Amino acid sequence: MRTPAQNAELALLLEVCGTPKPGNVDRDRDLDDLRFEHFLAGAVGAQNGLRLAENGAAVGTAFERAVAGMARQRGGNTQFGALLLLTPLVCASRTDLSQPVVESVVEETTVADAADFYRAFDHVEVFVSEPPADLDALDVRRGSDAIPALESRGLTLLEVLAGGVPGDDVAREWVTGFERSFRAAERLATSEGPVQRRAAETFLSLLAERPDTLVAKRHGEAVAAEVTERAAALEDALADDPAAVDAFADELVSQGINPGTTADVTAAGLYIALEREALEV
Amino acid sequence: MRTPAQNAELALLLEVCGTPKPGNVDRDRDLDDLRFEHFLAGAVGAQNGLRLAENGAAVGTAFERAVAGMARQRGGNTQFGALLLLTPLVCASRTDLSQPVVESVVEETTVADAADFYRAFDHVEVFVSEPPADLDALDVRRGSDAIPALESRGLTLLEVLAGGVPGDDVAREWVTGFERSFRAAERLATSEGPVQRRAAETFLSLLAERPDTLVAKRHGEAVAAEVTERAAALEDALADDPAAVDAFADELVSQGINPGTTADVTAAGLYIALEREALEV
Repeated sequence: MRTPAQNAELALLLEVCGTPKPGNVDRDRDLDDLRFEHFLAGAVGAQNGLRLAENGAAVGTAFERAVAGMARQRGGNTQFGALLLLTPLVCASRTDLSQPVVESVVEETTVADAADFYRAFDHVEVFVSEPPADLDALDVRRGSDAIPALESRGLTLLEVLAGGVPGDDVAREWVTGFERSFRAAERLATSEGPVQRRAAETFLSLLAERPDTLVAKRHGEAVAAEVTERAAALEDALADDPAAVDAFADELVSQGINPGTTADVTAAGLYIALEREALEV
Repeated sequence: MRTPAQNAELALLLEVCGTPKPGNVDRDRDLDDLRFEHFLAGAVGAQNGLRLAENGAAVGTAFERAVAGMARQRGGNTQFGALLLLTPLVCASRTDLSQPVVESVVEETTVADAADFYRAFDHVEVFVSEPPADLDALDVRRGSDAIPALESRGLTLLEVLAGGVPGDDVAREWVTGFERSFRAAERLATSEGPVQRRAAETFLSLLAERPDTLVAKRHGEAVAAEVTERAAALEDALADDPAAVDAFADELVSQGINPGTTADVTAAGLYIALEREALEV
């Protein structure tokens, strides 16, 4: 049996293998400065933090350590969002990997967890939106410099993330009981074929369902909405017309449009499916 | 900094990514029952054993645990030979990752290490040659059942492996101070481009240098020699005529010829290059 931390690391590896995964690095595609090997090294680097979560460390501590390890490769931010989903899921696995348990894990997060979340931004550059002027002191891009402002307001990690919804569908998972992650796991379990194909199908179905919030932040909501419309039109094409999905994947890569949030939710779904032994490798 | 165990795991992942790697699973190719994801899961599963080696466990203990974890996927034997090289290299890294130190690590192996080596065969089916009739009692395929015969003869792990030379180029590394592994690391460090390209070049140069002993065991020495001649003729083609190497790769895959020993030495070279920071990811 793999441990929860091992399944989380394997979920990161299987996520990046899923192909075609339009716009993202996958088994068949690299971006200019962000390549497949950076994701492999990111997954290996995250393992100590994930093991802390498995062993009962606080969510914030485990996440900050996982990000610090993930960042020790030259591609930059490979898996920050995925780790923000995986860490509470691994914590929940100590009791039971179910939506109610992971909800209680995130509800029990503290100001100290939030401080560690800010510290994680010291390790890697994460693409985020400009905060409103009145929240400038809490801009995550300040990293640990923002901790005094955070502590003076007494915000827990769940409260910090709730402030990012709408606009960030990783944060949205935290306030909705990880509902898309659990649904992705169902889809991974019930689809057929090799895992990289299932991961690609699940990614495409998630992308067809909601505009990717990283794409919206980087390229605007109209572009994100268009990508989702295209994905919805292609959703059943993986079986009938895989070349059309491949062409879409190449087109997004060439335009620098990478639906990273959708990949993060796919990784969370892979973890849940592996941990429940609903997906065998 | 990644730890030695993390670099060993990353070496396993980078090895399977190297493409084109004629005859083997690589980033672009799967075999029928042995797919990319099995190698990913094998690498993740091996991590506890590799960490034991990093923390000072005996070579045999660490190897047996690494193989037990590696075998927890449905593809069968993915990385047995690679782990037989990586384990003593990780042990050596506690002192200094050099040829003299790894030589002393293998010279200090005991009968207990040999017994754990035999136990490792209980976890996974490994393709090996028929032993001579007088060594039938020591056939590794007996797994732990052969331990009494082993103990009565008092053979250390180095002695057991020395008995496999010639005919097994993983065992040969143990008796030659890991010379090809260290040379592979040099080549990985001095070649250019992304790591998956360097891994492919290094694999091809190793294959051009000596017939692969797994191919020889499975298909006979004539086939192994022919594969090596073809590899030698193509050695410089990766730059000029990559399609020729791809065609060779597809041809070997279709014939079921997979030079697994050459891949094992490539993985060992990747570990040495990563650990010495001669190869950055």
